[in-house]
Amino acid sequence: MGRWEPDSRDRLQEAALALYSERGFDQTTAAQIAQRAGLTERTFFRHFADKREVLFGGSVLLQERIVAGVTGAPAVDGPLAAVTRGLDAAATMLGEFRRDLSRQRQVVVASNPELRERELTKLADCATAVAAALRQRGAGEAQATLAAEAGITVLRVALQRWASEHDDQDLASIMRDSLAELRAVTADA
Amino acid sequence: MGRWEPDSRDRLQEAALALYSERGFDQTTAAQIAQRAGLTERTFFRHFADKREVLFGGSVLLQERIVAGVTGAPAVDGPLAAVTRGLDAAATMLGEFRRDLSRQRQVVVASNPELRERELTKLADCATAVAAALRQRGAGEAQATLAAEAGITVLRVALQRWASEHDDQDLASIMRDSLAELRAVTADA
Repeated sequence: MGRWEPDSRDRLQEAALALYSERGFDQTTAAQIAQRAGLTERTFFRHFADKREVLFGGSVLLQERIVAGVTGAPAVDGPLAAVTRGLDAAATMLGEFRRDLSRQRQVVVASNPELRERELTKLADCATAVAAALRQRGAGEAQATLAAEAGITVLRVALQRWASEHDDQDLASIMRDSLAELRAVTADA
Repeated sequence: MGRWEPDSRDRLQEAALALYSERGFDQTTAAQIAQRAGLTERTFFRHFADKREVLFGGSVLLQERIVAGVTGAPAVDGPLAAVTRGLDAAATMLGEFRRDLSRQRQVVVASNPELRERELTKLADCATAVAAALRQRGAGEAQATLAAEAGITVLRVALQRWASEHDDQDLASIMRDSLAELRAVTADA
């Protein structure tokens, strides 16, 4: 396998998600993923530290994009408007990921307690980072936390909908709808 | 230790939180907690399945109270208004817990990754249960999820504030303030 495989990362990801879905995450090995992708185990470990990283490898970059969106928002933006800029950046990044693979990932993560805990922790860390970025923009303590948490909730709900529904609506537009619904729900209480 | 100890559960909880704060959760044993409380290890295990349950033993009851508040809310209440009834019930239950112990618990949980994951999972489970209760009341899928998540966010932010601030404001009133701030933040985006 000395030759350059430009799409080997994608093939490994696709093979991994197929196996996690078919036989479960715990029952799948890196060797099996590599075999399914027609690659060597060594190639797998060149792309991923372990089989969990296939599912969570993008989360650091995702958080960076969201925080950059918040930090770069115009000064006139309120806290949640600034978070929305970050979510737009997230939608752009995630929207490039194939929707059928997103759906598989969602089901795999939801059905394994350890993976679900990891997902919740990653999202909570992301909310903490967003809240810190908002405070740097001058938002108050509670305002920053609430706007960050509300934003991450919108992201999560939108991702779930995007992965589970079969219409053609793109992620950014689902996020805007979810934000509008959160606003309606909050105004009504 | 054959005699009846009406306050042994409270004493064990207080001793456990003191030890978790002083030497860390991982470094504390059930035997040490019992000794600090002037009780036997057997008494400890009559009250708690393990040392984690000292921190999380109340979460099932808390979730039941919140869900009962949602289910019992007047039919005219919107989804988040119904969640607010549940949060009021939570505030009543949690408000009986000593604030200094709440503060200690908060710090212990936040400083241990495993405990933090467990806390996030419990809160996520609670949000899922609240969303299910809202759907049973006729709320739409997204509306139910967003209202439930928003409510749990308010609960979490309010608990943090209640545990960390030194004024006399009670938990129910901090929750109402947090909800008002969430409304302001959301309206402004």
